[in-house]
Amino acid sequence: MHIDVDLASRSYPIYIDEHCLDGDLLTPFIKGRRVLVVTNKTIAPLYEARLSKALSAAERVSSIYLEDGEQYKTMQSFDAILTKALEDKLNRSSVMVALGGGVVGDMTGFASACYQRGIDFIQVPTTLLSQVDSSVGGKTGINHALGKNMIGAFHQPKAVLIDTNTLATLPDRELAAGFAEVIKYGLILDKDFFVWIEANVTDLVDRKHDALAYAIKRSCEIKAEVVKQDEKEQSGMRALLNLGHTFGHAIETLWGYGEYLHGEAVAIGTLMAIKMSGSQYHLGDLYDRTKSLYEKMGLPVSLEGQADLADFLQVMSVDKKNIDGNIRLILLQALGKAYLTDDYDKETLLRVVCQFIEK
Amino acid sequence: MHIDVDLASRSYPIYIDEHCLDGDLLTPFIKGRRVLVVTNKTIAPLYEARLSKALSAAERVSSIYLEDGEQYKTMQSFDAILTKALEDKLNRSSVMVALGGGVVGDMTGFASACYQRGIDFIQVPTTLLSQVDSSVGGKTGINHALGKNMIGAFHQPKAVLIDTNTLATLPDRELAAGFAEVIKYGLILDKDFFVWIEANVTDLVDRKHDALAYAIKRSCEIKAEVVKQDEKEQSGMRALLNLGHTFGHAIETLWGYGEYLHGEAVAIGTLMAIKMSGSQYHLGDLYDRTKSLYEKMGLPVSLEGQADLADFLQVMSVDKKNIDGNIRLILLQALGKAYLTDDYDKETLLRVVCQFIEK
Repeated sequence: MHIDVDLASRSYPIYIDEHCLDGDLLTPFIKGRRVLVVTNKTIAPLYEARLSKALSAAERVSSIYLEDGEQYKTMQSFDAILTKALEDKLNRSSVMVALGGGVVGDMTGFASACYQRGIDFIQVPTTLLSQVDSSVGGKTGINHALGKNMIGAFHQPKAVLIDTNTLATLPDRELAAGFAEVIKYGLILDKDFFVWIEANVTDLVDRKHDALAYAIKRSCEIKAEVVKQDEKEQSGMRALLNLGHTFGHAIETLWGYGEYLHGEAVAIGTLMAIKMSGSQYHLGDLYDRTKSLYEKMGLPVSLEGQADLADFLQVMSVDKKNIDGNIRLILLQALGKAYLTDDYDKETLLRVVCQFIEK
Repeated sequence: MHIDVDLASRSYPIYIDEHCLDGDLLTPFIKGRRVLVVTNKTIAPLYEARLSKALSAAERVSSIYLEDGEQYKTMQSFDAILTKALEDKLNRSSVMVALGGGVVGDMTGFASACYQRGIDFIQVPTTLLSQVDSSVGGKTGINHALGKNMIGAFHQPKAVLIDTNTLATLPDRELAAGFAEVIKYGLILDKDFFVWIEANVTDLVDRKHDALAYAIKRSCEIKAEVVKQDEKEQSGMRALLNLGHTFGHAIETLWGYGEYLHGEAVAIGTLMAIKMSGSQYHLGDLYDRTKSLYEKMGLPVSLEGQADLADFLQVMSVDKKNIDGNIRLILLQALGKAYLTDDYDKETLLRVVCQFIEK
């Protein structure tokens, strides 16, 4: 099956299927062109051979193998991809293919946005998190010691190829990290989807194919709709996808990239956001329902170790959503109803942050 | 006076005047916003104080001082600008201002394109070359050891502020380098302008204000028209602005960035391109007329030292205009009539390159 991401300028397909990595869905996008596959040392042994069949229509295929992990989403890796592209004489008609998780996809997207001022790229996400979130929508970038995803570009892929079968080999911890983003879509925009997740949590954790495929499809549909409405994050609509992320980014920065997976930091950050929201709106037992889902999925619901409040707020203050130093947050009015605001009680923010970062 | 660059998405003004650095033309673009001025150690003592008056409507202004020279147009300098922006907590409503020549402008444009996936920037070019060429049109980027301007973005400035008075302090050699690009506009698209330059060459070299102001205005008009027709270099129209540049880039790479100024390398490269063109079309004495203009302006018309033919062609082969390894060239059919082609006699190319790179 496939979903189209319709943008003002053009649209592109997201293919979602078992074993589609082995098919010829990519042929129209790479036919006769030079291809650079960007992947990492963990993913390459699992899928590179299969992908090379799918890329057999290319004029020439070369590969670069990055180190695996968020801590390598750096200027150095970005430079390494561009150097490889120059060594292999990629030109403006060439294509980069991102084979891997969100780190590989974000860096490949950014490198393709900047190589010769922009060439095509294709996303082949192999983790649940990248399948439901980062591979769709054209946000690309790298981290900086002073802030996550602070350097990057909006650059849409030409196609996204999601082989649900790649999840079979995904470590439990990474699968759980992906569920954090799936749950997010329910929380911010689709109450029914949240209820469906609650009803199907066992099948999801047991990696039942139909449940996973539906969760991916529904997540991509919601993301595609949001990106269609606000491609470059100007209206505030797209910012809703960042529920829990401002807190989460601070956790990732202060605990060090790699200590918590992105999805894990987002799960804890989302609990912080729901706690904040609960001080303004009556959310019933939403905090407990969400926490229970996270626990069943193997996600952390509290932080190991502690951080300084001032440091935490300092990192939150450099978030891209902020305007002139005011921290803007995504909060919930109700299940399935999120909003972006800087009008919240600052005392409550301090209290909620302390509750999570101090023992 | 001012010229508008009309693009599909929006338009922006190029202001050209004596002493406009001291005025308030920038106020509408920076009012109440945080500003990062990117400049270099040569330019800052000359103009930074004057610019700070023009930026007095900003909420806060900070500056970063880069090393001066094409050899610093690197990933390291790009990183330094972004680090400074993060340290100073620039946000998505902030503005970067490029105060300096083409190197400062290209790097600032690229950094602003990538900072938080894109913020506004303003060009304040202080060299003739950047006033007539690089500050207009949105091509931004940095160099790589394997090729010039290979990493970058299309990112249009919000405004360009050209104070013709800044040329008073410009070293003769840099003024001459700018004339190479001025002459280029005549060669590729405007026969009358070329004839005007021939008639006014003494006034130009003597830095007569009216002559310089007209040369800048006419150059910006031609560039704005070309960019309007082909913003992202897709139709081949914009590529015409690269007359002499494919040869010139190879010279800059092989002789080392900084040995020849960009405009100097372009002058020699343009002579190579005219020599090539002359083998296909009857160009009369255009080669000699152009060479004579360069000589009167103090530009080099031959290379010091020599290079290896294979190395030269190798560097030319990674040019962004190329498709699948074929070197594409801008050639002239007649004065004021350029075209992009890969259909030329390869033997002639070898002969012309040898003539210039060997003693």
